[in-house]
Amino acid sequence: MLFGVRRLSLSQGYRVAILGATGAVGTELLQILEERQFPIAELRLLASPRSAGQTLTFAGETLTIQEATPSAFQGLDIVLASAGGSTSKALAEAIVAAGAVMIDNSSAFRMDPTVPLVVPEVNPEAAAQHQGIIANPNCTTILMAIALWPLQQRHPIRRIVVSTYQSASGAGARAMAEVQEQSRAILAGQPAIAEILPYPLAFNLFPHNSPLTESGYCEEELKMLNESRKIFGLPDLKLTATCVRVPVLRAHSEAINVEFTEPFSVAEAREAIAAAPGARLLEDWDRNYFPMPIEASGEDDVLVGRIRQDLSEPNALELWICGDQIRKGAALNAVQIAELLVKRQWLRSPALTH
Amino acid sequence: MLFGVRRLSLSQGYRVAILGATGAVGTELLQILEERQFPIAELRLLASPRSAGQTLTFAGETLTIQEATPSAFQGLDIVLASAGGSTSKALAEAIVAAGAVMIDNSSAFRMDPTVPLVVPEVNPEAAAQHQGIIANPNCTTILMAIALWPLQQRHPIRRIVVSTYQSASGAGARAMAEVQEQSRAILAGQPAIAEILPYPLAFNLFPHNSPLTESGYCEEELKMLNESRKIFGLPDLKLTATCVRVPVLRAHSEAINVEFTEPFSVAEAREAIAAAPGARLLEDWDRNYFPMPIEASGEDDVLVGRIRQDLSEPNALELWICGDQIRKGAALNAVQIAELLVKRQWLRSPALTH
Repeated sequence: MLFGVRRLSLSQGYRVAILGATGAVGTELLQILEERQFPIAELRLLASPRSAGQTLTFAGETLTIQEATPSAFQGLDIVLASAGGSTSKALAEAIVAAGAVMIDNSSAFRMDPTVPLVVPEVNPEAAAQHQGIIANPNCTTILMAIALWPLQQRHPIRRIVVSTYQSASGAGARAMAEVQEQSRAILAGQPAIAEILPYPLAFNLFPHNSPLTESGYCEEELKMLNESRKIFGLPDLKLTATCVRVPVLRAHSEAINVEFTEPFSVAEAREAIAAAPGARLLEDWDRNYFPMPIEASGEDDVLVGRIRQDLSEPNALELWICGDQIRKGAALNAVQIAELLVKRQWLRSPALTH
Repeated sequence: MLFGVRRLSLSQGYRVAILGATGAVGTELLQILEERQFPIAELRLLASPRSAGQTLTFAGETLTIQEATPSAFQGLDIVLASAGGSTSKALAEAIVAAGAVMIDNSSAFRMDPTVPLVVPEVNPEAAAQHQGIIANPNCTTILMAIALWPLQQRHPIRRIVVSTYQSASGAGARAMAEVQEQSRAILAGQPAIAEILPYPLAFNLFPHNSPLTESGYCEEELKMLNESRKIFGLPDLKLTATCVRVPVLRAHSEAINVEFTEPFSVAEAREAIAAAPGARLLEDWDRNYFPMPIEASGEDDVLVGRIRQDLSEPNALELWICGDQIRKGAALNAVQIAELLVKRQWLRSPALTH
């Protein structure tokens, strides 16, 4: 146990559930709640019937996973959901009816106009408008938002061209295990078997495996467009993305070309990033040392570097970012939203009286 | 031996040397000369003193590597050089004085205005202007040129924004071995040791390890700009690149956003790519199956796919390409230049009389 967590009384803490507690994001949620000493009076771990009965440890206590039935949410203040879109859709009504706020990591409600889509460093005020559900944005979108919002606040963005380098963790814990198993096989001269991901990822890469749309873009790429517009409150933001899965375990990287409506000096951009919450400027030009997945893994901050003037466009900058896909790209952002609700007293009654 | 090669007499074949015969590109040059049945009367393998005395097999014959001294080039028609820029610079004068044409894979002479920079599918006529040296472009540039030239011929390109996903092979055979060794170590719970590349590449990635320039771009990125301008004959072409090293063994991938001076339909772009020499359209939208490094490895063609209308810019298209970095990105392109010289009788005398 890294961090001590006192079991708080109901007057001091909140009744929290993790829905999808056994997944890559679920186990990270558990760890982050503990690390950040989130004020917890009760922690309920919920998952599919397959996982019910298993145990996980939180703050030195052994907790048994319960089946996520509609009746499992009674008495809760906050449900951190990370069990996929169909589970979120199926259980949202029960969660809201129970009086809890659902902070949903799936894409189910992100574009619903009645559901706030929140990155606490960017649009915390949006969370106040919730009607029982707050959506956690897509991982690539969160990481990019952390890097671009401090720039947008100084000079308006006109257009973004982004290419991603996405780790296996975005496809879950089993995909992370699969790329390691494939690597072992290839190094032993055996064929790589792909069961979770559509193609072998070890020593390979491929366009993102989300469904393709009529436009030729995959859903992951359209999430970057549509979610960024909603989070930034810029419905006309121009963005084109190419999302690619790479043989990295848990941090995503992004090459971002961002054009502004006016010139933006590299010096000012560095200053803005250095001062931005959730971002860390990481540039050692003498050592050619910039953000890398192995540096970003396990970190809360989005690492930003290689900020340079685009040689092809006077109003554009190039940036290179890396961020932990499971932490800031998912679990940490969700916990930060929960912290925001507590701090601003935006939970639903009776939690508001805590 | 995959392909039969007859030992030709001097009246039928050419006297060829491979300079840097033991490297990743050198051994591929040997294989490609054999596969394509290049008309060879004599094949001389040259390398550093460290490799001299070793043997390699060509067309069933065992050839002994000789030291690459200035006197080693006497009597040759063609020198395929892949031993690094400093070796190329040191030996170019001796090669030219010996009457051979040097086809140089290093960056030493690429931007020299007296040296043609040639991709045979793009600017074959430039090779006619050689004064003893022809430069083989950088790998990422060749692959992109194959995909973009057929488009440029239909509608002029205004600007390119490219992000690369570059394999270990670009840093040589030892880097390829290193990423495999690092992978083994990490899978066994051991630390990854980086000796050839600056940082661990296994399950990681980092901005390209070429020297950084004052502009903030690394040399690899500026090569894509400057070499593309020279090959295409477009001195004002706008291009910005982010080059990234990924844990893939031998094929490079590139996400290319290309803006034209006028609209360019996806249908027309597909038609142009499908008809282009050296390119192969690879798109199965139902299976989300597009170019991947494991498909491009060992292939001559540059695989092109995911051609789609850029949602953010009416005159732009998005493309995704993969190509074998050692073959078309280096050795194959050099052999194709040699074939061009033979076919068009652009070798220097006395080879012209063959």
